[in-house]
Amino acid sequence: MRAVDIIARKRDGSALTREEIGNFVTGVTDGTWPDYQASALLMAIVLRGMTPEETAWLTDAMVDSGIRVDLSSIPGIKVDKHSTGGVGDKTSLILAPIAAACGVPIPMMSGRGLGHTGGTLDKLESIPGFRVGLSLDELKAALMKTGCGLIGQTDQIAPADKKLYALRDVTATVESIPLISASIMSKKIAEGIGALVMDVKTGSGAFMKTEGDSRKLAESLVSIGNASGVKTVALITDMDKPLGRAVGNANEVAECIEVLKGGGPADLLEVTLALTARVLVFGEVATDLADADRRARGAIRSGAGLERFRRIIEGQGGNPRVVDDVSLLPHVDGRHMVTATRDGYVSRIDAELVGRASGALGAGRDRVVDPVDHAVGIMVLARPGDPVKRGDPIFELQYRDRGRLEPALSLAARAVVIDDSPPRPRPLIVSEVQ
Amino acid sequence: MRAVDIIARKRDGSALTREEIGNFVTGVTDGTWPDYQASALLMAIVLRGMTPEETAWLTDAMVDSGIRVDLSSIPGIKVDKHSTGGVGDKTSLILAPIAAACGVPIPMMSGRGLGHTGGTLDKLESIPGFRVGLSLDELKAALMKTGCGLIGQTDQIAPADKKLYALRDVTATVESIPLISASIMSKKIAEGIGALVMDVKTGSGAFMKTEGDSRKLAESLVSIGNASGVKTVALITDMDKPLGRAVGNANEVAECIEVLKGGGPADLLEVTLALTARVLVFGEVATDLADADRRARGAIRSGAGLERFRRIIEGQGGNPRVVDDVSLLPHVDGRHMVTATRDGYVSRIDAELVGRASGALGAGRDRVVDPVDHAVGIMVLARPGDPVKRGDPIFELQYRDRGRLEPALSLAARAVVIDDSPPRPRPLIVSEVQ
Repeated sequence: MRAVDIIARKRDGSALTREEIGNFVTGVTDGTWPDYQASALLMAIVLRGMTPEETAWLTDAMVDSGIRVDLSSIPGIKVDKHSTGGVGDKTSLILAPIAAACGVPIPMMSGRGLGHTGGTLDKLESIPGFRVGLSLDELKAALMKTGCGLIGQTDQIAPADKKLYALRDVTATVESIPLISASIMSKKIAEGIGALVMDVKTGSGAFMKTEGDSRKLAESLVSIGNASGVKTVALITDMDKPLGRAVGNANEVAECIEVLKGGGPADLLEVTLALTARVLVFGEVATDLADADRRARGAIRSGAGLERFRRIIEGQGGNPRVVDDVSLLPHVDGRHMVTATRDGYVSRIDAELVGRASGALGAGRDRVVDPVDHAVGIMVLARPGDPVKRGDPIFELQYRDRGRLEPALSLAARAVVIDDSPPRPRPLIVSEVQ
Repeated sequence: MRAVDIIARKRDGSALTREEIGNFVTGVTDGTWPDYQASALLMAIVLRGMTPEETAWLTDAMVDSGIRVDLSSIPGIKVDKHSTGGVGDKTSLILAPIAAACGVPIPMMSGRGLGHTGGTLDKLESIPGFRVGLSLDELKAALMKTGCGLIGQTDQIAPADKKLYALRDVTATVESIPLISASIMSKKIAEGIGALVMDVKTGSGAFMKTEGDSRKLAESLVSIGNASGVKTVALITDMDKPLGRAVGNANEVAECIEVLKGGGPADLLEVTLALTARVLVFGEVATDLADADRRARGAIRSGAGLERFRRIIEGQGGNPRVVDDVSLLPHVDGRHMVTATRDGYVSRIDAELVGRASGALGAGRDRVVDPVDHAVGIMVLARPGDPVKRGDPIFELQYRDRGRLEPALSLAARAVVIDDSPPRPRPLIVSEVQ
């Protein structure tokens, strides 16, 4: 089996065999497929597509490039929640402690922010001392102790994905539903979980800009998960505007603590509870979604979620007192308000531009190896549909370096549109794919 | 200008700008574009195509990656003939001496055999002592002395093409009319010629299997040549069956000597004269095609073509006595006849399979660095349309190593089809693109 023949078959639009896909993934992992052949095949896959069967084989082969974590020593059905990425998308930090408090073990493997999207690991690391680099043994210990472990990808899990992703990033071959699906699902399947709740974002700040593409991705993810013995459901949720008010890192953690204390923005609460309910049902601690919703709200009301967050932070080396005093989180003094330039209704708060503005302040990165400034970010003070008068606050930019303020301001200014009439409301939870 | 953005634009079907194409070619040449980015863009070009304008810019950029040979010190209009490659395609070795004898300087830069197709350089090297590796100064000296220089590609001419071709070969990105056109034409334009006659082959043994694809390639080549100041014409000629009888290396040289002596197969003579006539008209030594045809036939009849071939061989270090005694060419004693398995009409002699059979005997190579055995090959003794009786000779396989005979035989056996009725005749010269 020659690499060039496999590439030629995909170039000509054929479906590859399981053996051909295995040859590719093994070759990428052990280096027998040079990068230039791998990238040619990746581009052919982007432009020619893959059948659901090919995508499942690709996922399997990527899982088999590393170890499958054995979490059978942890009692209960292990459930993870994963998002395709967004702006202000901080639901994990609320969902994980609530679900754990309700009795579902949550082994959650997350990523870092890239481009205009934030990453759970960066947000967690804004908590002083918090350590996301747990070993797999430490993950199991955390699950036994707090019912939750929040970690980054390890080299042992789907190493093929790490190599492929690095290559896709520099060869314009990221945008492919089969490749995205296999990348996400290989890591989730290898994680040793029994069930997965996917949050597939849609809109300007999402990877998938249209509902049609988001649905295709959701269907692909659900089909791979269920075929591999990981019960999977996907909610398609709005990411045309940022979720909640805080966009950044430390400010997002503070907002999560607010929600766990019973406050916080309504949209963030709604999306988080919808996802959490599905985790609780998968984890078999709730009989149905209504029961699950009651239990999740109960865990907020009773303070059990907040207390669990405190224990999780403590268990992973972070300063648990941040849940009582968010001023212990990194913060900056520089504040700049972006205000409405006219009277009217806010018709749009563009999530991607807000994400890029936050990135311009230093809260994001363009390359995965770059550092982020946990203290800076943006507070979104108006929502689409809000009536505003000229001069009303729209964004508060929290900046450290005045030199970074200017580019962030120009992006933020473009992110807001004010109109004479209110926009048609967009549903927050667009649909569910089972 | 980032490579990944250029790749993404082509991936999405956009036409690239002159600057973007220049960035790519320069980057490939100086190594600032790593192979994996180049191959991703190449695959996107294969699947998304290029406009004629993009193809012309690509060609220009590839020419500019090296030197443009200055042949202005050689009097006359310098004309080259180039073929897209075939089986038994030996016209260059007849055309070059005839055209030179008629007064047209022929600087001819050729390639090596690869896959099922033969290469002029390999054929020339079957002449004992013949040296194709002339420097550019030696090429000029040869042109002054014999009116002809037959050489291989040098590192100074279109180095980008050499790098790109090596990459295309292993990434299944050879099959693209814009990439093929730019590869051929960049070398021809850099060669310093005033005019070019292209022989675009069509059929099973050709790179382009269908007349439609051959026509597209011919149109692309002619358009680039004329836009770059190299007058270009293309003949589309049949390569569904081998051209002439000899397929190999030394046996093809012997067949060329036969034609220069006034004999040889009719199809080979017809295609060679059609190409030669256009070279003579471009070279302004004939008033029109009819005049050119007369002159070319005259150079055969008078022996001037043969004498010129002798001088060309001598000038490039080869043994000139081969034109008198072809037994001085390398040859083998092993002979095996493939005969007709039934009575009927030969309906097909598949050029690609004959080429692969010849390759299996050792006359061809799969990788450009492999050696070839100049002495082995195949004589094609029947033509489509010939009536045959069971047992009549079809092919004579000239082999050195009995172990290589078996695989060659099985390919050769599949190459011939015998039917109850004669096939519809295919024209030898399909059309002309100006």
